[in-house]
Amino acid sequence: MASYSAAEAKGAGGDGGANNICRSVWLRGWLDEGVPGPEHFTIKDTEVDVGSLEEGGILLRSLVMSVDPYLRGGLKNRSGANTTGERIMRGFVAGRVEESKSGKYAKGDLVGCSANFSTLQILSAEAIAATLIWKLPDMVTEENVSLGVGALGMPGSTAYGGLIDVLRPTKAKEADEADQTQQKQTLFVSAASGAVGSLVGQIAKNVYGCTVIGSCGGPEKGEIIKARYGFDHAIDYRALPSDRDAAVAALTARLRECAPEGIDMYFENVGGVHFEAAMASLRKYGRVAVCGCISGYNEKTSPANSLKLGDLIYSFQRIEGFVCMPWLSGAQGNFLEDMSTWIKDGRVKTEETFFDGIERWPEAFKSLFTGKKLGKVVVRTS
Amino acid sequence: MASYSAAEAKGAGGDGGANNICRSVWLRGWLDEGVPGPEHFTIKDTEVDVGSLEEGGILLRSLVMSVDPYLRGGLKNRSGANTTGERIMRGFVAGRVEESKSGKYAKGDLVGCSANFSTLQILSAEAIAATLIWKLPDMVTEENVSLGVGALGMPGSTAYGGLIDVLRPTKAKEADEADQTQQKQTLFVSAASGAVGSLVGQIAKNVYGCTVIGSCGGPEKGEIIKARYGFDHAIDYRALPSDRDAAVAALTARLRECAPEGIDMYFENVGGVHFEAAMASLRKYGRVAVCGCISGYNEKTSPANSLKLGDLIYSFQRIEGFVCMPWLSGAQGNFLEDMSTWIKDGRVKTEETFFDGIERWPEAFKSLFTGKKLGKVVVRTS
Repeated sequence: MASYSAAEAKGAGGDGGANNICRSVWLRGWLDEGVPGPEHFTIKDTEVDVGSLEEGGILLRSLVMSVDPYLRGGLKNRSGANTTGERIMRGFVAGRVEESKSGKYAKGDLVGCSANFSTLQILSAEAIAATLIWKLPDMVTEENVSLGVGALGMPGSTAYGGLIDVLRPTKAKEADEADQTQQKQTLFVSAASGAVGSLVGQIAKNVYGCTVIGSCGGPEKGEIIKARYGFDHAIDYRALPSDRDAAVAALTARLRECAPEGIDMYFENVGGVHFEAAMASLRKYGRVAVCGCISGYNEKTSPANSLKLGDLIYSFQRIEGFVCMPWLSGAQGNFLEDMSTWIKDGRVKTEETFFDGIERWPEAFKSLFTGKKLGKVVVRTS
Repeated sequence: MASYSAAEAKGAGGDGGANNICRSVWLRGWLDEGVPGPEHFTIKDTEVDVGSLEEGGILLRSLVMSVDPYLRGGLKNRSGANTTGERIMRGFVAGRVEESKSGKYAKGDLVGCSANFSTLQILSAEAIAATLIWKLPDMVTEENVSLGVGALGMPGSTAYGGLIDVLRPTKAKEADEADQTQQKQTLFVSAASGAVGSLVGQIAKNVYGCTVIGSCGGPEKGEIIKARYGFDHAIDYRALPSDRDAAVAALTARLRECAPEGIDMYFENVGGVHFEAAMASLRKYGRVAVCGCISGYNEKTSPANSLKLGDLIYSFQRIEGFVCMPWLSGAQGNFLEDMSTWIKDGRVKTEETFFDGIERWPEAFKSLFTGKKLGKVVVRTS
């Protein structure tokens, strides 16, 4: 289905059957603005010199590749470099260790990793030290290895860390466990049917006992986040007025209906109208965890948001940005063990939209910006 | 000097010599915008029925009254009330307990308190329970009781809490005291020659060992914060271009000169241009403590600030509002003891601008917005 040109593929032709053929996603050139689509990428084939694997390295076969909104930033020539931008794409993959000369990873291990979007690649000892790579927990098999780019990977650790350590829904994890005064707080999360938002809402609801409000595009997704994930309220952002100020007012009014006393926490995936309405709804001691701003990703420069700074003062409010690294690397929290437990006992349900074949990676990526997907979008390479 | 009309004073004429005469500062009516001045206030005299002091209460004589920028907010009819706004002004005072039926305060005690701007008033047991009142430490006498509305009062606890617990300059107070990796961080504080800013800079420099940059109005103040308080750099905001965008760019450039690697902390007293330049200069893991936004106080509605929300994400940056209550009340930290120690050992120097006579309170208040003062502005009532 993808419109890439097979003629551009380098190296030996496709179906040689050789196990050392590596297919990779390449960016054709800088894309400073607009929706990215198949026309902006190409797939190239190369051969991996498997014999070059050195001490401390591994040969990694990617079984699944991720598409995530943050990748949009890497398509922009933000530093003003005097280059075309053509290069291999990198992001999160999950796969199998095919060969290992590393003491840390054994042949057959299933791992998640930040690496090239290549079906087969050698990671040297230096590359392993410089990237995020983690052994997937026992519950993961080749059947559900896509969890390694979802709930047990970057999106999962983003939801986990952002909710638990940035928004801090209760004091349960702190020393004074008797102080439950902060329980039953109200959380609002945008992009609530997406890979991160759906996990944030479920952990908040099913682990921390919060009241949970989600915004997503269209009534069908709203039904899903309520019926399947247990959200208390769903707000359809597509039903908001097109005028910006009117949209902020309407979303603020909807939040007021769902949470008459205001919201305690906002998990920000979107920016713009959502940010302003959430701030207008935030209670005393309210917190905002800034995870993403997808509403501006396809614009050349990120649009500025409007903030009434003085409103933060007497309310002791906090706005904090973060990315998944501390939790995904294990430096903070207990992500893989906690999330595995919650998946197994049903407190966290996962939803995936699959695209089969690496050549469909560009189409899968585009779906993030057009909304035609649910939950985590995953490209299966085999 | 004040232009209030003595003819409006109620009750027995001024110099009757009676000890129960109470002079109070009154607001004439709502002032939604513009610089407040003597024309907006009046002084009224009443008599206090000293015999009405009941169990648990105290009779408080205010020796000094504070003027603080936050009081500007209370002059605005923000709730749209159908009233003229005429009323007695309230704020921070320091004074002597003249009579006491309270077990907590003895006759002769010197206290700081949030109360009416009245020279003499009864605080009932209920009023004491509902307000902020604190016994001033032993180092305070009637000679230096003005510290109770300055370094040992609201401004001091604001500087203390905002720096130590919101900005968190080092990990010295945390469990792992060996981790000194965060030392020698760079702090920027606006309104740096003012009551709060001058204390923030001195604590950061002389207690926490930070590199400290302050902005203030004019080269004279800049010399004072460097020579007297030990700031490393002073920026004269009056030298910035009048065009808003140009001012942001110029202040950002000045900050870059002072801190080539960026700032770690920004203590916000001003808002507007300062906020945007500080955000543009903020490093990874940077924090902003929002204490005040004086640049917008005389406008009818607080102007919105521009925030590039997405910039917070990968940098793990945090913006947090706060007021002094937790530290001034003693609920958090060890404010009075720590600050007394630092004043006594010279790590914190205090500077005050006095206005003598309650009738000069309006003039003193105006000075906060016209910049004709240094350090803490205090009205001595006697």
